[in-house]
Amino acid sequence: MPMRDVSTFELVLVGFGHVGRRFASLLAECREQLERDDHLACRVVGVATGRHGLAIDLDGLDLGVATDLVASGGSLATLHDPDTGAPPADTQALIARLADLGQGRPRIVVETTTLDVASGEPALSHVRAAIASGAHVVTANKGPAAVAYAEISAAADAAGVRFLTESAVLDGIPILNLARETLPAVRIIGFRGVVNWTTNHILAAMEQGGDADEALAAMQAEGFAEADASLDVEGWDAAAKTAVLVNVVMGGRTTPAAVERTGIGGLIGERVRDAVRRGKRVKLVAAAARHGDTIAAAVAPVELNATDPLAQLDGQSNAIVLATDLLGEIVITQRDGGLTQTAYGLLADLITIRRSLSPDRPAPGTSLGRR
Amino acid sequence: MPMRDVSTFELVLVGFGHVGRRFASLLAECREQLERDDHLACRVVGVATGRHGLAIDLDGLDLGVATDLVASGGSLATLHDPDTGAPPADTQALIARLADLGQGRPRIVVETTTLDVASGEPALSHVRAAIASGAHVVTANKGPAAVAYAEISAAADAAGVRFLTESAVLDGIPILNLARETLPAVRIIGFRGVVNWTTNHILAAMEQGGDADEALAAMQAEGFAEADASLDVEGWDAAAKTAVLVNVVMGGRTTPAAVERTGIGGLIGERVRDAVRRGKRVKLVAAAARHGDTIAAAVAPVELNATDPLAQLDGQSNAIVLATDLLGEIVITQRDGGLTQTAYGLLADLITIRRSLSPDRPAPGTSLGRR
Repeated sequence: MPMRDVSTFELVLVGFGHVGRRFASLLAECREQLERDDHLACRVVGVATGRHGLAIDLDGLDLGVATDLVASGGSLATLHDPDTGAPPADTQALIARLADLGQGRPRIVVETTTLDVASGEPALSHVRAAIASGAHVVTANKGPAAVAYAEISAAADAAGVRFLTESAVLDGIPILNLARETLPAVRIIGFRGVVNWTTNHILAAMEQGGDADEALAAMQAEGFAEADASLDVEGWDAAAKTAVLVNVVMGGRTTPAAVERTGIGGLIGERVRDAVRRGKRVKLVAAAARHGDTIAAAVAPVELNATDPLAQLDGQSNAIVLATDLLGEIVITQRDGGLTQTAYGLLADLITIRRSLSPDRPAPGTSLGRR
Repeated sequence: MPMRDVSTFELVLVGFGHVGRRFASLLAECREQLERDDHLACRVVGVATGRHGLAIDLDGLDLGVATDLVASGGSLATLHDPDTGAPPADTQALIARLADLGQGRPRIVVETTTLDVASGEPALSHVRAAIASGAHVVTANKGPAAVAYAEISAAADAAGVRFLTESAVLDGIPILNLARETLPAVRIIGFRGVVNWTTNHILAAMEQGGDADEALAAMQAEGFAEADASLDVEGWDAAAKTAVLVNVVMGGRTTPAAVERTGIGGLIGERVRDAVRRGKRVKLVAAAARHGDTIAAAVAPVELNATDPLAQLDGQSNAIVLATDLLGEIVITQRDGGLTQTAYGLLADLITIRRSLSPDRPAPGTSLGRR
């Protein structure tokens, strides 16, 4: 491999919750390795949150200090460098300011805010603003790719930047990258997957007794499910991931609202336990299939045979069965999901961008060529 | 994506058996798609076989005619263009001749000969000769990467060409590409896999009754297993695939002979059936794990719990569980293996080479940069 200079990426963190902070610590853990293996150094020059303030520092923000500030209820605004102007009023202003202050280095917006599944907001607005400002975007949010992938991709292509969202489905497992980079000439005919943790847990609890509501209440009492688990229980999370897969992997155009959706909220425990007695299991299955020029997508509880590769998935295990023309069925399974995996997906997207920048053309806006 | 001219690859087929011929027909099936999506055209300028003759034609050999010739017991030598000199005496001579006749286009040797697992020959010699002649190499053979991956990789790097062998493990499922391209910064700690079809079939037959020898004899009588199934039964095929994975995915240095190996030949049917009665299954498992600076690798029959992702694999289904530092366990499963999948692995490697050649540097020997 020809020796390459280390390229410095200027990162802008939009959102600094659990995922954003784990991304920050992972970046620190992998610093030496990134420099050595991918000739990549990262400097976080901006951070924008909804409740903890905003800050810009072109010399690099100390993310350890930022994490402590957020943990202690302080404001990130105390880290802001006034030489860059007054503290920006909001995320859009911060993104625009950093474009104005740009020093010609690749700038990457790392988007990890909390999502409204139906609208894709506020992630969608953040992504649009970032691309308009000439920044690459990596996001753990399902929203943008679920709601407006074709529009965003076209805008990114026109701006000569990348839009990557590996973490949106199966956390850090490279399902999108797999289909994009390692299956050339293969046509994805459809898929079936178990893509949501909470419903896995609830269905397993139902197998032991009770109905969905009781199982959920018990999990919430023990702290295993969030107070508002309706996004999971009603299938919205799975529908958003289904839309991402349809849009990114199958080249379709859909939205979470257009995915036929049946949650597990109405499931009677007896039906789940009866399936087990017959050697089967009920899972919330996300699926899509091509029919001519259209793609039908649905999320629903499905009774699976014990030998089905989706039947044995419990807890944080998720999997997707891709149906292909040339290779038949391929299954990719995540046995252990979690915050580190999600943060890793963001890191992998950064490295993908680094690799797409040839050594003599390091700046965005030139010729990145989505391959 | 910037418009790129179609690049023509000159292919040299070394071996023209079942895999080579399916590759030829797949190339024809995908011709328009390759030109459109990857700006790639392929012309087969040479073919070398051990028993069906050799031929060179710089204008392109007709592979349909070549297939008919082989099927009818004819010699490929009848396709040879005498303007390129006398028919070459052997594969090495053909590879060297094509290097001399080279027209500056990327030349790719597609190696699909029959393998001696212990020595890796004759594939190993073919690969060395191809790289020495300045050609890229793609091979469905396990031998070269199992026996001498470090040496071959270094030679390919020095020559500015690529050596790719995706088909060697799990046929066309991109397990090597997955680890190389889509898991940056992830360390593979080890793996467990079911990677051989024949032993899957034999073990399933044993579950229904009989010992290994009887099950194999029945399969051979029905045409489901080759007359010499010892490579499979004694675990050599799995050991070779294990060595490929250790060398390519884990960066180790081993050989099939160095893999601890216990076949299924000595298995008593009663042990297999007893496992089933206890809700378990016996599978031939290929595994490797890092211990400090060393990697221990072994192939052996293992009793698996029913919930193990490897337990439900039957027939042509194969799978590998990768243990990683950042992502925990990832499983990739091929549900349907076959000749098309193997041929596809070769095609995917071709496309990988095409993508690694930037539009303004189309010739090999320049700066390919293994990324």
